[in-house]
Formats: sequence, C-alpha cells, structure tokens
Amino acid sequence: MKRSRSLPTKNDFPVGDVRRYLEPGPIVLVSSKWRGKTNIMTLGWHTILEFSPSLVGLMISSGNHSHEMIARSKSCVINLPTTALTDTVVGIGNTSGDRVDKFAHFGLTPVDGEEVEAPLIGECHASFECRLHDDVLVRRYNFFIFEVVKAHVAKRPVHPETLHYTGEGVFVVSGKAISRKALFRPGML
Amino acid sequence: MKRSRSLPTKNDFPVGDVRRYLEPGPIVLVSSKWRGKTNIMTLGWHTILEFSPSLVGLMISSGNHSHEMIARSKSCVINLPTTALTDTVVGIGNTSGDRVDKFAHFGLTPVDGEEVEAPLIGECHASFECRLHDDVLVRRYNFFIFEVVKAHVAKRPVHPETLHYTGEGVFVVSGKAISRKALFRPGML
Repeated sequence: MKRSRSLPTKNDFPVGDVRRYLEPGPIVLVSSKWRGKTNIMTLGWHTILEFSPSLVGLMISSGNHSHEMIARSKSCVINLPTTALTDTVVGIGNTSGDRVDKFAHFGLTPVDGEEVEAPLIGECHASFECRLHDDVLVRRYNFFIFEVVKAHVAKRPVHPETLHYTGEGVFVVSGKAISRKALFRPGML
Repeated sequence: MKRSRSLPTKNDFPVGDVRRYLEPGPIVLVSSKWRGKTNIMTLGWHTILEFSPSLVGLMISSGNHSHEMIARSKSCVINLPTTALTDTVVGIGNTSGDRVDKFAHFGLTPVDGEEVEAPLIGECHASFECRLHDDVLVRRYNFFIFEVVKAHVAKRPVHPETLHYTGEGVFVVSGKAISRKALFRPGML
C-alpha cells in the first residue's frame, strides 16, 4: 500500500485539553515500541479519567500483541485517525503485529516522539504521547491508566471527521458540531 | 418544561451487545435512586470493558451529587439521549440533584427498571440497568465498574443521532453510518 507523503503539520497542544479529541469516543490507533520493534493496534475502549494530571484509561485486551509491548515499555502513543484512514483502521485491526510490520505494510510514517520511545503516526490528525501511570487494573481487566505527557494536534480542521465503532463492521462518523456554550453555567465549561 | 408523553417503545436487547451504543462514545444520562430520591447526571467519561460479563467503566466525579447515591445504592441506569434532548442534556449538567428533582424539572418520565431500583428515563433511546461490579478504583479515580444486567433499546432508528462532547460547550453529532463489514476478518467482527 502506498500513500502520499504530505503529512499534516502538528502543533503542541495542552495535555489537559485532550478530552476535546478523546471524549467524543473515536476509534484510535495505539502505537508502541519494545526492543526495537514497533506495533499499531486499533482501539475503541477508552475513557478520559482526569484533567490534571491528564489521565486516560485504555482497555487493551491481552490477546493483542500490543498488550505485552505496552506493559513492558510502560508507554504508548494514542493517535487519532480521520475517515481518510478508514480502510487502514480496519486493516490494522485485522492483522497481528507478531507477523506484520504495520508501519511498512500500511504505508504509515513513524515520527519520533519527544517523551516516549513509541512512534507517532504521521498521517493521523493528533498524537498523544502516554506514559503508564497506574497498572493496578491491568491484570484483572486489561485496563491501563496512562498519563498524556505530550500532545500534538493538526491545526485544521477544528472538528476532524472521526470514526466511532459500533461493532459488526459498522462505524458511525462524527458530523456537524453544535454549540450550546451560551446555555452552560460558566463553571461547567 | 413540558414535553410530549409519547415515549419510544423499547425492546429487550442482549446485554453483551451494548457496545453498539456505548463504544461510539456518546454523552449519556445516568439515573440513580437512593432512599426514595432520584437523580440524573450527564456523563461523557465511560468505556466498555468486557463483553461477558457485560462490563462498563464510568468516571463519576465525587463532586456530583450522584456519586454518593450510586456508591451507596450500588446501581444506576445508563440512558442514551439523542439530539432531540440536547438542551435537556445541558440543563441536567448545569443543575445539582441536591436542590432540584431533575425528572420533574426537565419533564422526564421515570420508568421502573426490572433489575435495579434506579428509574429508566422514558424519553431516551436506550436504557441499560447496571449493578456495581467492582469498586476497587472508586476511591482513587472515582471510577466505577458496572455490570449491565438488563438492556432496553428502541427499535428505530437503527443509528440514533447521538451527542459526543468535546468540552467548551460544543458537541459533535454522530452522523452517517459506514459499513466495512466485508473487509473484516470473520473473527474480528
């Protein structure tokens, strides 16, 4: 698979504001690196847990090759694909990292992070570098609590068209944005 | 606030399939009951954790009146509002249950559950009755792990238009559904 090499330019973004991209619940691509090898997995089971420190929880099934790589390296990058990458998202979910170099196979560009070893995916709209914060629920629920230590976000579009998985091979796409800012109590914003 | 009383008719739905509605990451309304009083809160910080048992994780900040009611009653109902309820969703987030009877104030219809004390919200597209499964992370992260013990879903539309919160008073709305079922390996569906 070949892909154009024009990658979105990303800016630093406040780690305490990553909810803007993750709270809507998109499918994300989680990249990792361990002993010189990289991997990527698709993931839809995640939640914001706290603003400061910037905490997110990810359920990474132990059946995934990424599980052990992330548990050992204690880090990962959460990347946000848009609908332009729909077929790549499905392809990554279909293949296992113990047999395939996913960056090469899917024509994705690994970009060095600043805080963690795991590579960012250049083609994605945003990338959040994460360090393991608490593994208390890893054994019981495969639930990793990470701190986002560095965030990179493309400037445009402000509301990228993201994929939200429903199971059964069907995604819903985030569409129009609607503001109710005027209705919110100031303290609730 | 007055509202029409024609409530969507809901059917039983398999508890192992609630990811269809929750994995896309919508804003939900969480209803609770404790010592004869009911409450409702808006919530966007949740994730699916397991298919069977059907587990979901909810971050319910201790600043919410609902937190104690849910911790004590060890149950809640996760209700899925559509865009028809946008202003109600914002209003519920703006008000505190220690001062306001939210069902009455917002013209919502409490419907008896089958498995838990907390009432379903009749106007919502779906309602998932939940029993506390594990409170190990409640004290440290306000993170409740619930088992969905009964699910009720309106038959139509198949893909309801749901709200996904980005912060700053802005929601993105789930729009068109796209299927890539043909691309998935059978075991991945």
